[in-house]
Amino acid sequence: MDKGRILLAVTGFHPQRWHELLSAEREVVLEPDGPNDPSITYAVVWKQRPNLLSSLPNLRAIFSIGAGVDHLFQDPSVPQVPIVRVVADNLSRHMTEYVVWRVLDHHRQGALYRAQQAKKVWHEPQQRVAGDISIGIMGFGQLGRAAARALLGLGFCVNGWSRRPASADDVTTFHGESGLIPFLNATDILVVLLPLTPETQGIVNYDLLRELRRRNGLGGSVLINAGRGRLQRDADIKRALDDGTLKEASLDVFETEPLPKASPLWSHPKVFVTPHAAATSDPAHLVQPMLDQMNAFERGEPLQNLVDRAAGY
Amino acid sequence: MDKGRILLAVTGFHPQRWHELLSAEREVVLEPDGPNDPSITYAVVWKQRPNLLSSLPNLRAIFSIGAGVDHLFQDPSVPQVPIVRVVADNLSRHMTEYVVWRVLDHHRQGALYRAQQAKKVWHEPQQRVAGDISIGIMGFGQLGRAAARALLGLGFCVNGWSRRPASADDVTTFHGESGLIPFLNATDILVVLLPLTPETQGIVNYDLLRELRRRNGLGGSVLINAGRGRLQRDADIKRALDDGTLKEASLDVFETEPLPKASPLWSHPKVFVTPHAAATSDPAHLVQPMLDQMNAFERGEPLQNLVDRAAGY
Repeated sequence: MDKGRILLAVTGFHPQRWHELLSAEREVVLEPDGPNDPSITYAVVWKQRPNLLSSLPNLRAIFSIGAGVDHLFQDPSVPQVPIVRVVADNLSRHMTEYVVWRVLDHHRQGALYRAQQAKKVWHEPQQRVAGDISIGIMGFGQLGRAAARALLGLGFCVNGWSRRPASADDVTTFHGESGLIPFLNATDILVVLLPLTPETQGIVNYDLLRELRRRNGLGGSVLINAGRGRLQRDADIKRALDDGTLKEASLDVFETEPLPKASPLWSHPKVFVTPHAAATSDPAHLVQPMLDQMNAFERGEPLQNLVDRAAGY
Repeated sequence: MDKGRILLAVTGFHPQRWHELLSAEREVVLEPDGPNDPSITYAVVWKQRPNLLSSLPNLRAIFSIGAGVDHLFQDPSVPQVPIVRVVADNLSRHMTEYVVWRVLDHHRQGALYRAQQAKKVWHEPQQRVAGDISIGIMGFGQLGRAAARALLGLGFCVNGWSRRPASADDVTTFHGESGLIPFLNATDILVVLLPLTPETQGIVNYDLLRELRRRNGLGGSVLINAGRGRLQRDADIKRALDDGTLKEASLDVFETEPLPKASPLWSHPKVFVTPHAAATSDPAHLVQPMLDQMNAFERGEPLQNLVDRAAGY
């Protein structure tokens, strides 16, 4: 079989590196030759224009740039071909780094030490022990499991919550609606890695945050969101920080991105903001696995890491 | 054999918790009954008064609070009995946390993100890959090995340097004077966990820092010192930061502690200061291993984790 052409359909950034690297093995176009272009076999997409993919007669699979695929489901015209999620050691490593970094900065009281340094104060606060802290990972897929392993290695207790039952060594797992409150009640630091679906939109709200464990002597509960911004209610996070429900938050994602200048989260003393940078999709590491999958698929092997369209992720 | 009395000889802090916890199994005194008190069998010490231990006729062993024992060798009258270094999972875990926390904060560009947040700037800088960064751990004992394992798990390359030859899985090790320059030349982020001895005093100076690898695109080299303050020359670190030899530093220890208000390190924008708090000796976790060693010793078992007096650590 002839090698199919790739349609690279991206909005929001310049896909030059993706284009160069994909072109090493296949012909890549940024626009189809008309709405029924028969030469397009694969689409590599990020927030593609609506209807762009709807009538390509020979489209065999869609590859999403980035682990989240919610952008794809915002276009109801996306055809019923397999959707492949990007999975790469590199992406998982970057996310694990971000989660461990943020957990340690809260656990080791980075904000307090920075404030002390600004005032030239030499004072050693009481330091908690990792084994006394439970990290709750909400969304327990490939990224959540990798982060859990690193956190366990540092001596933290780890809980995991997912829609469907899951298990992992040394992790206390919870699932489904009935498992959510028990999961939160046993969690000091909440790490959100959920996919964005109609069911998860807005799930990180004030009522949820109130269920986190707030134990004496452990300094309050912490939120870390590296999933999707629309999982959370920005205003509820601010309220929870202001009334002490939350001690601190590290937010990589926001309801509106880029975060508007008017947002009170920018200057909130208890919030650490990163610009949706926890785990960037780096084409240097992600293109080859995509090309390998296309080649394997054309040899008759099944596609890996398929998105479950019914579940929406 | 009767259970020997413990002399708890501490300056610089109130040893109340140590006293309470040691007292659970043995009689503890803060002063001997005169210089030749025959009832003292063990001394648990931190910067004890000079000559305090010199003439106790039945002193069988000295237990140091804290992994560093340089404070003991500042008193030449310390008698020739075994010196036991505190070794505890808890201490090692806290040090590993500190090292991983600081490595990740430099690697993931925490200072840049905090500066961007202060200006409400939404910008994603290029993010390096852990596998492209070599962490060099100087002082490759129990604490260094534990930190190395955690860093390897996150995908970093790890080098180790020690006085005597050492090896560890997946770590490139160097040793002795002849190995120092090659070790530094292969290191991007230097983590200092050395003991303080006459040979190591002032070793972290400008000439040493100049040997660190400074590669294009990797943002400069970084110093993390969680060993002892007198290993470093504070003024040399400032010079290296100011002329770009170092990109950033995390310093938990200083030539003079508490760090004087007049030190330019307090307000240096490239320095993160903590008050010798990387791995605190917490009596809740350290007293029982000491008592267990005393009991085992009295049953005829050898003492563990002995200090090498000739090497000075």
